[in-house]
Amino acid sequence: MSALKAQSSPATAHSARAMRRLDELARYSDKPDQLTRLYLTPAHKAAVGQVQAWMEEAGLSTRIDAVGNVVGRYEGTDANVPTLLIGSHIDTVRNAGKYDGPLGVIVAIEAIAELHAKRERMSFPMEVIAFGDEEGVRFPVTLTGSKAVSGTLNAAALGARDADGVSIRDALAAFGCPPDLQSVARKPKDIRAYLEVHIEQGPVLEARNLPIGVVTAISGASRLKVTVSGTAGHAGTVPMNLRRDAVAAAAEMILTVERRAVATEDLVATVGWFQTRPGAVNVIAAEAGFYVDLRSPSDGVRSKSRSTLENEFTEIARRRRVGLAIEVTYDQRAAACDPQLITSCDNALRVIGLRPFHLPSGAGHDGLAMISLCPIAMLFVRCRGGISHSPAESVIESDVGIAISALIEVLRQLSVSQMQGAESAGKAS
Amino acid sequence: MSALKAQSSPATAHSARAMRRLDELARYSDKPDQLTRLYLTPAHKAAVGQVQAWMEEAGLSTRIDAVGNVVGRYEGTDANVPTLLIGSHIDTVRNAGKYDGPLGVIVAIEAIAELHAKRERMSFPMEVIAFGDEEGVRFPVTLTGSKAVSGTLNAAALGARDADGVSIRDALAAFGCPPDLQSVARKPKDIRAYLEVHIEQGPVLEARNLPIGVVTAISGASRLKVTVSGTAGHAGTVPMNLRRDAVAAAAEMILTVERRAVATEDLVATVGWFQTRPGAVNVIAAEAGFYVDLRSPSDGVRSKSRSTLENEFTEIARRRRVGLAIEVTYDQRAAACDPQLITSCDNALRVIGLRPFHLPSGAGHDGLAMISLCPIAMLFVRCRGGISHSPAESVIESDVGIAISALIEVLRQLSVSQMQGAESAGKAS
Repeated sequence: MSALKAQSSPATAHSARAMRRLDELARYSDKPDQLTRLYLTPAHKAAVGQVQAWMEEAGLSTRIDAVGNVVGRYEGTDANVPTLLIGSHIDTVRNAGKYDGPLGVIVAIEAIAELHAKRERMSFPMEVIAFGDEEGVRFPVTLTGSKAVSGTLNAAALGARDADGVSIRDALAAFGCPPDLQSVARKPKDIRAYLEVHIEQGPVLEARNLPIGVVTAISGASRLKVTVSGTAGHAGTVPMNLRRDAVAAAAEMILTVERRAVATEDLVATVGWFQTRPGAVNVIAAEAGFYVDLRSPSDGVRSKSRSTLENEFTEIARRRRVGLAIEVTYDQRAAACDPQLITSCDNALRVIGLRPFHLPSGAGHDGLAMISLCPIAMLFVRCRGGISHSPAESVIESDVGIAISALIEVLRQLSVSQMQGAESAGKAS
Repeated sequence: MSALKAQSSPATAHSARAMRRLDELARYSDKPDQLTRLYLTPAHKAAVGQVQAWMEEAGLSTRIDAVGNVVGRYEGTDANVPTLLIGSHIDTVRNAGKYDGPLGVIVAIEAIAELHAKRERMSFPMEVIAFGDEEGVRFPVTLTGSKAVSGTLNAAALGARDADGVSIRDALAAFGCPPDLQSVARKPKDIRAYLEVHIEQGPVLEARNLPIGVVTAISGASRLKVTVSGTAGHAGTVPMNLRRDAVAAAAEMILTVERRAVATEDLVATVGWFQTRPGAVNVIAAEAGFYVDLRSPSDGVRSKSRSTLENEFTEIARRRRVGLAIEVTYDQRAAACDPQLITSCDNALRVIGLRPFHLPSGAGHDGLAMISLCPIAMLFVRCRGGISHSPAESVIESDVGIAISALIEVLRQLSVSQMQGAESAGKAS
């Protein structure tokens, strides 16, 4: 009953240190004037050392795995039950903010530090993982760290090369990690679940004045490259009824995308890239190209919406007598968070006095890879203005404190249910 | 009555030579592999010499004026009446077609050659002018040749410099023309009218299966640079209702432009240039910029449409909570062709067995400058696919023959009305 006794003790005492450490970690950068920390660079190596030191200080036994992930283990009371993983990534995009990734690692370390300080252990062993590559900026692959742990990283992926022609394999060797993917991959029977705390990277929690949200799923995403072919012409000499204007046709399609997304629950759709050819002020465009980015926590909704949009585009192109080519350049299934884990998250939030709120994650996360290994769950932390992938990324200390408390409570909820499960299993047998 | 006697003699015999000469003139180029003949280049100089030789052969007395225009004079029967000018330009855009400009010069020469061969003279003197700069490609000014003749070229414009820093003044000196604008400018009392034959550069005549059209006006044009400012955001994390999407707002405005132009007689409107910022597939655009090109033969229609569009853009921006900036980057009044000259053109077409057809010129022409000096009129020649400013520019020989015949008949119509006018003036006095 130790977990229940500790319910009224939020660990906000650790939030100030978490904020300091997030600032400190941001100093490990490949560039002097901005935060850019790519996979397997010297800055990443230094950050690994720092994270490892903080893990050790928090009572974790650490190691660097063969793909450069930092792994810190905190034993539980029962050595025979599967391990709970808690993680996030410490690589960043170029000119990044301080919180996308590192927040989840630091919150996990502070949560364990709090448990360690109280000599409190869960029934299960836990491992905190600081993944080395989630963003996929340096090499043309993403989620290298979590794919390796989940056993889904193809050895061929290590041949991927950066802009200087260096392969991941060579970079790992230089990093001090002779790559041995088998040593990194975990077995499903050994892993209970994967938890991650991450900034929302969107405006929903802020708009609802909530510090924390429970993620229902990491949305799946489709990207369509749409090319509309019309006929170039002089802007002054071609009457409106004789035009086959690629820009006007594309504009109609873009509004259709927006209308469809507004009308469909659990769907967002975006056209952020749009180009015209020849792209002259006084020439009717011969070609307009744009990308549609579709995301949904429901693969069914996404797939149906994509097909509806393709039909609508075809109808617009037919009516306007323009050519149409649609290419699917990306297609990623959604990763649904585990319902039981979501319930534990909800209960944990209630314990610390918060109303549970559910939202999908429109951005991708390590859970997309980890779900191949085990059930996943995520907690989102409110961020200012929904801004991410920018130096303007910002969280408030009290929210970080709440995240630490919430994570501790989730662990306690899972520990209790683990023990109750074992007990009832014992009774049944 | 010599003019009336000759009505049944179309000058199509000259069309084959006209086509050969248009091909030959296209060989005078600044570039070996394409037709690019910019103002005051060696290729322009050589073309001037060739045009001058053809003019002389046709019975014209030639000179090069102080801005590099070739001027060939054909005397009339009455030395005391104002001169009729017929012209077009011999400079080209980069990688041009053979007909935009040169066609009007060659047709005029062939028309005079036909008259000269028949020893036929109009009542008025005529001058054929091959303007040196209409396109304004080399220097950041346009219509230099016709502005100088019309007396509207500011001496300061000669200071305009090309990409190499050479001014028009220096280029004229190197061309052999010490610039003396006063010697070029004609006086309104000395000039009867300005006629021009030009390819349509649009698809209207082809769509109506007509070789020749009579231009009602050179359309005025407005260009608006529209900048829409939204809020950047992650394509996956920002719900549709919290977006301020610059691309979607701009798409709605572009469709509004199209709808307005379709619904408005005598208006064409085009968005051919569109850019987004940051322009990433997975980022809601913070900014979208586009140009609206509005053209109308009626300044009233153009001005009203512009103001209506500005109001509609403002309403869209208000509703979508995005910023809006509209900058007028170009504003050129329409140049209406003279009603009496249009009637003469109509009559001339009837004489050669064609049904007169009226259309506006959506493209700009030397008439935009010449209208400051005298009444203007234009005949358009059908071109294939409406294509212009491209090596694919194409006309058919029989249409060129008809254009020569039509021009001759216009001259005869004007000569007759000149004589009748003089006669009735004599009677009245």
